[in-house]
Formats: sequence, structure tokens, C-alpha cells
Amino acid sequence: MDLKGYLRERAVLVDAALDRWLPREEILPPRLHQAMRYSVFAGGKRLRPILIIAACEAVGGPPERALPAACAIEMIHTYSLIHDDLPAMDDDDFRRGHPTNHKVFGEANAILAGDALLTEAFRLLADAEANRGVDPAVSLRVIETIARCAGSQGMVGGQVVDMESEEHPVDFATLQYIHTRKTGALILASIQAGAWLGGGNDEQVAALTRYGETAGLAFQIADDILDIIGDQRELGKDVGSDQARGKATYPALLGLSEARRRAGELRELAIAALQPLGTSAEPLRAIARYIVERTS
Amino acid sequence: MDLKGYLRERAVLVDAALDRWLPREEILPPRLHQAMRYSVFAGGKRLRPILIIAACEAVGGPPERALPAACAIEMIHTYSLIHDDLPAMDDDDFRRGHPTNHKVFGEANAILAGDALLTEAFRLLADAEANRGVDPAVSLRVIETIARCAGSQGMVGGQVVDMESEEHPVDFATLQYIHTRKTGALILASIQAGAWLGGGNDEQVAALTRYGETAGLAFQIADDILDIIGDQRELGKDVGSDQARGKATYPALLGLSEARRRAGELRELAIAALQPLGTSAEPLRAIARYIVERTS
Repeated sequence: MDLKGYLRERAVLVDAALDRWLPREEILPPRLHQAMRYSVFAGGKRLRPILIIAACEAVGGPPERALPAACAIEMIHTYSLIHDDLPAMDDDDFRRGHPTNHKVFGEANAILAGDALLTEAFRLLADAEANRGVDPAVSLRVIETIARCAGSQGMVGGQVVDMESEEHPVDFATLQYIHTRKTGALILASIQAGAWLGGGNDEQVAALTRYGETAGLAFQIADDILDIIGDQRELGKDVGSDQARGKATYPALLGLSEARRRAGELRELAIAALQPLGTSAEPLRAIARYIVERTS
Repeated sequence: MDLKGYLRERAVLVDAALDRWLPREEILPPRLHQAMRYSVFAGGKRLRPILIIAACEAVGGPPERALPAACAIEMIHTYSLIHDDLPAMDDDDFRRGHPTNHKVFGEANAILAGDALLTEAFRLLADAEANRGVDPAVSLRVIETIARCAGSQGMVGGQVVDMESEEHPVDFATLQYIHTRKTGALILASIQAGAWLGGGNDEQVAALTRYGETAGLAFQIADDILDIIGDQRELGKDVGSDQARGKATYPALLGLSEARRRAGELRELAIAALQPLGTSAEPLRAIARYIVERTS
């Protein structure tokens, strides 16, 4: 299949929907809405929203029905990047080749733009007009899952343990905790949300859940590997920055070739999990390969 | 009626529910859950959750049905205080007589504890078990309203304009914008959420909406007045701190006696709005008086 074309077309859908649903820059207070839009439109790959749409399509649902949740997940992902980049956290000046939010809008506005994006994500998930045709009970399950995976025992919890891990060497169990929470949780939530919104049955949802768990971990291991070998221009951030901070990574704990072997193994497990789903899951299979083999 | 007894009994309900629904301190990562609980249990008056419960009771609903939304609003209110106190924002060392979250847990943990509380609020609002007996469509309306009132055109928007107002003198229209957004929006959302959860009809919801608008503004004007005349021990924060920062307040723009007159006028409008509701709204009438006449 033409993965590049698929990713491009879905990203166009997502970008147009984000532009439609995010408050316009001229709405009061303009500086806040500029800051929100600055980071949302700073060149992300839209991987998480595309996973929601692809999971929805894999069970036979129309891509449009997954769009509000797709945009909400991208807003949550963006808020987490804005806050992670703050001076009190990772203190990063650049992200995807652009100055980070607090470098452009100041620290206070960056904190508040993150807060507002997180809040707007849940507003959109509950918006009756945007979610026409979705069973309200399904919308609530999507909201509960996304919030659980983004919260103190999901993404935020992973970030806390990741920061603590800079202070002392961590073992493999802690590294697993960080990876499954900080990145994996939101990827899993994306896949499950898409499966429910598309009307998937229990067997399909179970298959996609296994896909989400394995592909999410593969994505993070690949990220660790890219931090060591990636091309700085393509990544748009400092290569080796995890190493410089003493952060726990798969290559640091297991060596580069063992990390590569595990990423490949997880890719195969993710693809095998999709066995019950047939050709409608072809984009998800191609995405599992892309996640591990990408160079940026 | 015995307002003190009513406030105490409802606060006990809210505190027990918050303790039940917030992740326990020993759950990973413990430092994050300690930080979340530290600020939630730092001695707040529980005004917003009590307003949700009182609005629910005013239309004949059982108080228990409003408890998840009541706790969610308190988590959102608490996250906003944690972030407002940060060095990059108001840079406050004390809140209600206790060291602020970032003074105890560090800046990064305070930012993340706020993020996690905001996220947990929406998880709880969508939790099927906690909201048994609530129509899913009503839950979605509650989530949409709370998110809208807490977001970029509500509470967060008010905070952005409030910060900008420190840099230059503001006019009365801007002061109104700040007050209706920064404090008023979440109070209005509380009242409306309670009215819907209690099963209120259109006339009752309209009456409570007018109450929420007027009582919310009265609350903020009273806060401005207390900042000037309040007793430092009772308030637990520095008296005159708004003045020292050059913040726009009602007394600063209109004079103390005119600010008092307007607060009293809004109190009477709030009480008059409840006319269609009869004796079940007695606690809300007493709260309108308390909001304007309190000394802390």
C-alpha cells in the first residue's frame, strides 16, 4: 500500500479539522490563542490522530467520525510537549526545528497555553455538534480512557518518573514503566478510541488493544535509538540529548543491537495482533513498519 | 436556615468523595500523588463543589448525584491555584497559610500535579461507575460546559488578561472581562452542572443561570474588597497584594463604597433570580448573602 499517500491524506484531514475547531487567533485573548496554535501547527507528524483514524477505519468506521477525538489527542500531545519543554522541566529551546513555546510567548503564557489545549481537548470530545452520530455512552468511554491514559497513572506519571530517573541510574523495570506511560499510554488510548468510535466488536477491540500496546512500545524504543543515531537536521532537536542528560533508554540499558532486535520483535507482534482484521487494517500494518524503520 | 451547618455537612461529603476518588499517595508515582493531594486538602472552603450540590438540591436532585462533578470542579479550581502560584505567574510562596505546591514539591512537580488534577477531573466526570444513574447525554453536557468555562475563553483566558493587566492600567470593560472569566465562569459552570444533574427543567436552569452569573461576579468583587480590608490571618495571604501588584480591582477603579454598593446589588439580583425555585433554593440564597458578607 501507499503509506506515504495515506499519511499525507489523513494529516490533511486532521490539520483542517484542528484549524476549524481551535479558537481563531483574533478571539480574546489573542496572545493565548496564538500560543496554542503556534505549537499545534509547528510541524508535528500527526501520528496519534492518524492512529485513531486508522483504527476507526480498520473496524469499518468512517474517518470523519474519529476526527474530534483525533484532534483532541493531538491537542493533548501538544500540551505535553509545551510543558515538557519548560525551563523547570527539560528546558529545551528548540522543538522540530522551531523555538519552543516559552521562548516565543514567555513562560507564563506557555504554561497557560498548555492548560488551555488540555482543557479544549476535553471540550471537543464532549461537543455534541462535533460528535453527531456518536453514541453518548461511547463518547464517555473515549473521554474516560483518554483521560486515564493522559493522567497521573499514564502520561503525566511517566513524565514524573522520567524526570526522577535523571537523578540516579534506573533499572529495566523503571524504564519499562516510563516508556509504557509517557508515550505508550496515549498511543494505546488513540487505538482504543478509534476502535470504539468505528463501532468495533469485542474481538476487534481486543486485537487493536494488543496492537496499541506493542506498537506504542516499539515507537518509544525506536525514538531512543534515533536519539543516538538520528540525523540532527531531520529530528529538529539535539541528537544525543537523552544521553547527555543521563536519561534511561533502551540502548543505554540493553545495547544498541539488542534494542533494535526488540523493536523489530514488537513490530512483528503488532502486525500479528491484527490478524483478525483483514485488509481494512493494512494502514495500521504499514504504520507498525514505519514506526520502527523511520529516520526522524 | 443554618448555613454554617449546611456548608459544614456538604464540605464533609465533598472531602470524603475527594479522598475516595483521588489516587492514593502510595500509588506510583507517589511524589506526584502526594503533590496532588497536598493542594486539594490544603484547607479550601469547597465553595464551588457546594454550589453544584446546592443547585442539584434546589431542583430536587439528590446531593450524591452531583458529587463526581463537585469533586471535578474542586480539582480544576485547585490546579488553577497551583499554576497561578508558580514563579512564572504570580510567584506566591503561601496560600491559605500553607507553603504553595512548588515551594514543597518543586516547580516541575507542581506543574505536573496541576496537569494531572485537570486531567483527573475530566476522567471522573466521564467515569461510568461514579456517575451511575446519570444520563450519558447529561454527563457530556456537563463536561462540555465545565471545559468551556475553564478553558481559553473562560478561566484560563481570564488569567492571561489578568497577567497582561499588571503591565498597564486597564479600563472597566477589561476588569469585567477578567472577573467574569477568571472566577465567574467556573462558578456559573458549577451552578449549571448542578441544575442539569439534578434534573432541572428549562425554567429552573434559566433561573439558576442568572443566579450563577450575578453571584459569581459578587464573589469576585467581595474578593477585591477583602484584599484591601481583610484580616491577613483570616485570609492566609498577604493583604493588599493585589494593590501592590497594580492589579485591576473594583475598589481601585470605582472606589470602595461604590464597589460595596455593587456587590450588595448583585447579591439582591442573585436572590431575586431564585424566585421560581421555592424553599429548596434556601441554601443558595444564604450562600449569596455569605459570599458578599464573609470576612475571609
